[in-house]
Amino acid sequence: MGKTTGGFTLPGESGYEELTLQMAKKWGADVIRDSDGTELSPEIINAGYGIYSTICIIRDHNEWAKQHPDKLQQTFLMTSPITAEGTTLTIDLMKDFFDEQFKMNDSEESIAYWQVFDRTTNEEIKDFTYADGKVTITNITPWHKYTVNFLAYRIWEEISMYNHTTNNWDKEHLLQIDPRHPETQAFMLDWLKNWCETHPATTVVRFTSMFYNFVWIWGSNERNRDLFSDWASYDFTVSPLALKEFEQKFGYAITSEDFVNKGHLHASHMTCDSKKLDWMKFINDFVVDFGKQLVDLVHGYGKKAYVFYDDSWVGVEPWGERFKDFGFDGLIKCVFNGFETRLCAGVDAVETHEIRLHPYLFPVGLGGAPTFAEGGNPTLEAKGYWKNVRRALLRAPIDRIGLGGYLSLTIPFPDFQDYIEKISDEFREIREFHKAGKPYVLKPRVAVLTFWGKLRSWTCGGHYHEHPELDLINVIEALSGMPLDVDFISFEDLTEKGLDNYDVVINAGFEGSAWSGGDKWKCPKVVETLTKWVAEGGAFIGVNEPSATCGYDDLFRMSHVLGVNEDTGSRLCHGKFSFDVEDSDAVCDGTTIAAKESIYVTDADTKVLMAAGSTPIITTHAFGKGCGVYLSSFTHGEVNNRTLLNLILTAAGEDINQNYLTDNVNTECCYYPDGKQLVVINNADTEQTTTVKTECGDKTVTLNAFDTQIIQL
Amino acid sequence: MGKTTGGFTLPGESGYEELTLQMAKKWGADVIRDSDGTELSPEIINAGYGIYSTICIIRDHNEWAKQHPDKLQQTFLMTSPITAEGTTLTIDLMKDFFDEQFKMNDSEESIAYWQVFDRTTNEEIKDFTYADGKVTITNITPWHKYTVNFLAYRIWEEISMYNHTTNNWDKEHLLQIDPRHPETQAFMLDWLKNWCETHPATTVVRFTSMFYNFVWIWGSNERNRDLFSDWASYDFTVSPLALKEFEQKFGYAITSEDFVNKGHLHASHMTCDSKKLDWMKFINDFVVDFGKQLVDLVHGYGKKAYVFYDDSWVGVEPWGERFKDFGFDGLIKCVFNGFETRLCAGVDAVETHEIRLHPYLFPVGLGGAPTFAEGGNPTLEAKGYWKNVRRALLRAPIDRIGLGGYLSLTIPFPDFQDYIEKISDEFREIREFHKAGKPYVLKPRVAVLTFWGKLRSWTCGGHYHEHPELDLINVIEALSGMPLDVDFISFEDLTEKGLDNYDVVINAGFEGSAWSGGDKWKCPKVVETLTKWVAEGGAFIGVNEPSATCGYDDLFRMSHVLGVNEDTGSRLCHGKFSFDVEDSDAVCDGTTIAAKESIYVTDADTKVLMAAGSTPIITTHAFGKGCGVYLSSFTHGEVNNRTLLNLILTAAGEDINQNYLTDNVNTECCYYPDGKQLVVINNADTEQTTTVKTECGDKTVTLNAFDTQIIQL
Repeated sequence: MGKTTGGFTLPGESGYEELTLQMAKKWGADVIRDSDGTELSPEIINAGYGIYSTICIIRDHNEWAKQHPDKLQQTFLMTSPITAEGTTLTIDLMKDFFDEQFKMNDSEESIAYWQVFDRTTNEEIKDFTYADGKVTITNITPWHKYTVNFLAYRIWEEISMYNHTTNNWDKEHLLQIDPRHPETQAFMLDWLKNWCETHPATTVVRFTSMFYNFVWIWGSNERNRDLFSDWASYDFTVSPLALKEFEQKFGYAITSEDFVNKGHLHASHMTCDSKKLDWMKFINDFVVDFGKQLVDLVHGYGKKAYVFYDDSWVGVEPWGERFKDFGFDGLIKCVFNGFETRLCAGVDAVETHEIRLHPYLFPVGLGGAPTFAEGGNPTLEAKGYWKNVRRALLRAPIDRIGLGGYLSLTIPFPDFQDYIEKISDEFREIREFHKAGKPYVLKPRVAVLTFWGKLRSWTCGGHYHEHPELDLINVIEALSGMPLDVDFISFEDLTEKGLDNYDVVINAGFEGSAWSGGDKWKCPKVVETLTKWVAEGGAFIGVNEPSATCGYDDLFRMSHVLGVNEDTGSRLCHGKFSFDVEDSDAVCDGTTIAAKESIYVTDADTKVLMAAGSTPIITTHAFGKGCGVYLSSFTHGEVNNRTLLNLILTAAGEDINQNYLTDNVNTECCYYPDGKQLVVINNADTEQTTTVKTECGDKTVTLNAFDTQIIQL
Repeated sequence: MGKTTGGFTLPGESGYEELTLQMAKKWGADVIRDSDGTELSPEIINAGYGIYSTICIIRDHNEWAKQHPDKLQQTFLMTSPITAEGTTLTIDLMKDFFDEQFKMNDSEESIAYWQVFDRTTNEEIKDFTYADGKVTITNITPWHKYTVNFLAYRIWEEISMYNHTTNNWDKEHLLQIDPRHPETQAFMLDWLKNWCETHPATTVVRFTSMFYNFVWIWGSNERNRDLFSDWASYDFTVSPLALKEFEQKFGYAITSEDFVNKGHLHASHMTCDSKKLDWMKFINDFVVDFGKQLVDLVHGYGKKAYVFYDDSWVGVEPWGERFKDFGFDGLIKCVFNGFETRLCAGVDAVETHEIRLHPYLFPVGLGGAPTFAEGGNPTLEAKGYWKNVRRALLRAPIDRIGLGGYLSLTIPFPDFQDYIEKISDEFREIREFHKAGKPYVLKPRVAVLTFWGKLRSWTCGGHYHEHPELDLINVIEALSGMPLDVDFISFEDLTEKGLDNYDVVINAGFEGSAWSGGDKWKCPKVVETLTKWVAEGGAFIGVNEPSATCGYDDLFRMSHVLGVNEDTGSRLCHGKFSFDVEDSDAVCDGTTIAAKESIYVTDADTKVLMAAGSTPIITTHAFGKGCGVYLSSFTHGEVNNRTLLNLILTAAGEDINQNYLTDNVNTECCYYPDGKQLVVINNADTEQTTTVKTECGDKTVTLNAFDTQIIQL
């Protein structure tokens, strides 16, 4: 591929001006950015590049924050259950929590929201007294367990807390201020106005992100520091003022227990009740409305406003209905994986879609292993991430790529500098293909059915490495590079809009999870609609515990379609159909799917395509004109991805050997009909030869490890 | 050991009179019995031995049964759910079922009890029509699933059905008649009177067992023949007459759905509602009341009445409160294991406790493998079973042992004949020790806490080989040979009587099972009582999912005592305590306990004694003056048994190295203080040397494989 430029955001580094400009040229950068804690020198700013400047609007205002301690962000916390030995119990509220992160809010308006529970009976204890950081309850039942829900200020902005403790920094802790208060809003608007005026060279203000961080609760015990961390839940958005405003707006009061939920909290991988949905709407409205004021202000200075979708992203959801109202010009997503690339690419509401590649230019990676340091191999890491991202880039257009961190760290790794040059050109070439027209897709139109639907399209909560055990995160990573149109739908979409636009519905997750659907499966209309649609020709693909909910004849509500069910123990005395495993071309050699011992065949007509002993692993079951397909789990990978694609194709009545599919599972291809360009990629770390059937005959190519080839048909 | 006689029941065989009398002498038999389908010849009957005669009161009356087809036994059945494609559906009732076992009862009084359900909504469809074996429903919701509960006669007595089909017999199927009807009762009494009169030589009538078989529902599809089999449930006790009498007695009607339970039925390893408990009481009362009439009749002829507790044993439960009212003179239990030996030994209500040893004198065993046939090794099998049984025999007195089947089959196996001679003498010696006084037990008094309590003491539903995956069946097998006093208690016992009589409470099973307790754990009084008792010094040992029920802060209601809990997925985002594994003498080298990945440590003070990676397997946790102990599963075996004993001892504050314990886990011992006899047994198939600390100093012995030694102190 030839040398191209543009669409690349480079992290500049003061003190390394020559390197910055040299790499900008090498990588074809058109924009230079600062990174957290760095400031660009005039030499860089005036070199003729676009300038992105990072701001995190809720932190780096310690002086103001200290003057307004009641404007710090807050959260509800629940003390660990304590067993009462007598009829009186005194509970030290902060005992379990990291005192550098939290400070009790024991103001009168805060205490009004506190709740004490007998967790042995689930009954609230209305009568309690508070003094000196402790709650005392009397006349209680001995040997029951008691907890207190209370409000605490967060006194250390979580991202800087993490970076600080990880890197053993020794500087002042950054506080975070809550824009719920009019005073904070006024301060922020004023601060941003001043910032814009003092940063004339900045062309793009990069918001990181808006106001409220994902939930990260640290504990006092070093053996259990990370008490709770969830990338999409809303606990950090709460305050007495917000609670009051919610009550006024929604006509009912939301309680601490609505957040605390017996200590389970409301993790985004689980379903939730309507109160939490109301709260999410309430916060989303606020974040969008005040966020828009900030964006408008930036626009007023002739600058663009991009949002970096990470960290303080709660209420920002780019696939939410109101995201378009922010008026952002661009969405930047840090990506390790294909699904994150699709999350960014699919958002219509912004003009510019940018992905920040990994590895981050930091000495160590997230897991603490060396990257740009002795023992690190950043080039190999980059290849691995690029392998994940490239498949998705081929399917959906991204406008820009970039890096973050300290450019000087790349000096000892010239092969890394060369590799980034190579993939930058590759990226720009693919971008051009997309400009010519949409890539070719196969016939099956896929819907992924979850509790969250479109709101959480192409995500499963957080980064892949955080929850690799979730089936859906693996399924969407596989789907992200497949030649298929994919939508994410909710159960309400299913019942209200029907499934006429789809050929395949996928439901993947464990019972009770948002990904499987939990109680949503108790709705007869859901079961009815899906059953009718399958009988008329649709394909329902279930992974792990699809359609699972208790209280019925079968745990899987779609067992009649799937031809399998799960026995959680109650059916130990029931017989199960024996079966022979049938050979199927759809299941590629080397497919590895973990068995789930509790799964059994419910119908003589269920075909078992893969099994471990008497446990079915992959099954298909004809139902009317359609069918059900079951997989006991799913992990993404070259072979498994192809098996999933084959299962989707066969379930939809399509041939698994058709045009624009490679015949080697380690390779994939993407065809752009408008420019007649065929891109073939090698996902393996060894040379691969592969043949693609095309309308112009078979094309056979040999690719080096991880390499890309472009064929003009 | 010297030659002794008595306490041995030998199966006689006509045509092999000489062998019968020779073996009777060799094995020290005092009684000769017939077996199913055999008749003793006069030469045997008149040889001066006691004579046991087997009768099965409900079968072998085909002539009468055919004249009274409405007096056959019945059951409720549920058709497989069928998805409606339109607003009308016709369901063929018998399609799923084995037509040689069931015949629809479509009488008017039967149809009155039928129920049709929409299983998609769990709603009953009151309006249905029946004709020609089919139920039709109209005006239904398309794409929902529908089932019919109906009554069927059972037309093949299940035990003979099994023997018949297994052995490819070609004789008339045996029917079974229901003593619920006065006519049947009159017939049975008359038949038994005649039988007693025509069998003057019989000294003991051996009932097999009473009237109602365990539930065994066969299906029409050979790939799923065994639709349901449970050794203790009550479905086969039902009839329109019984249902009517129940309603009169209990003041409310019980429905087909109360039995069918959405198709789950009520397996005895699961908890149940009060309706099923009422029905059990109703049937138990009937079985005892009419059973007593039969026993009285037998007594009237100067014969004894023993009950063989197997097969038609429903309503006979020997640990039930009313068992004593039968007036049985003896209880015979077929045993593969130690727990079955204890089940028999512990029943106070009978004078004579007899166990029938395995292997049965049959060409093949239960699994179909050869026993007394080419390729079989009955001596090795006998050693294996004797190993299981002997430990229990040492702990609790049994009066008689015996064999069953065809004696002639032992001819090619003289080593088997010799081995039975050896263990018969061993048995009689142990029996003498018991007569001198109770064996020495260690201090901890153990209670096994289950939904069923005392009713299902020393059982976990059926034979070990049927459900070896259940934790409790393994725990009770381990306990059956330990030097401990063990009781089985219910949750009502716990709340009403307290736990003052115990030092250790064991709760072992999966969530929702009768063995764990299911919803019983929702009762605050249960949690409260147990918590208080532990705080005051008790030890709670939980296995698998102890105290588990949903709807609270923790899945394990006793997590505060155990120091561990289970995450079924909802707490993926919650932190878990890290831990180091601590060395403990209690956990023997070679202990193998399967890990349960969902288990996590909840408290910094929890000690992990065994783990797989970051998953705790065995833990202990101090709580007040007592403690909690957790094991993620349990399988019985020499090493694991000793680890369990050690955990019980340490939990109760006792030394694991004390008098009358062997120092070699492959061996065990039992001390009879009154006769100062110490019995040491080798449970291994290799020679073992072991030392026992005694009040008379250390005793070291070397034992051959599986051998027994007796030491006079």
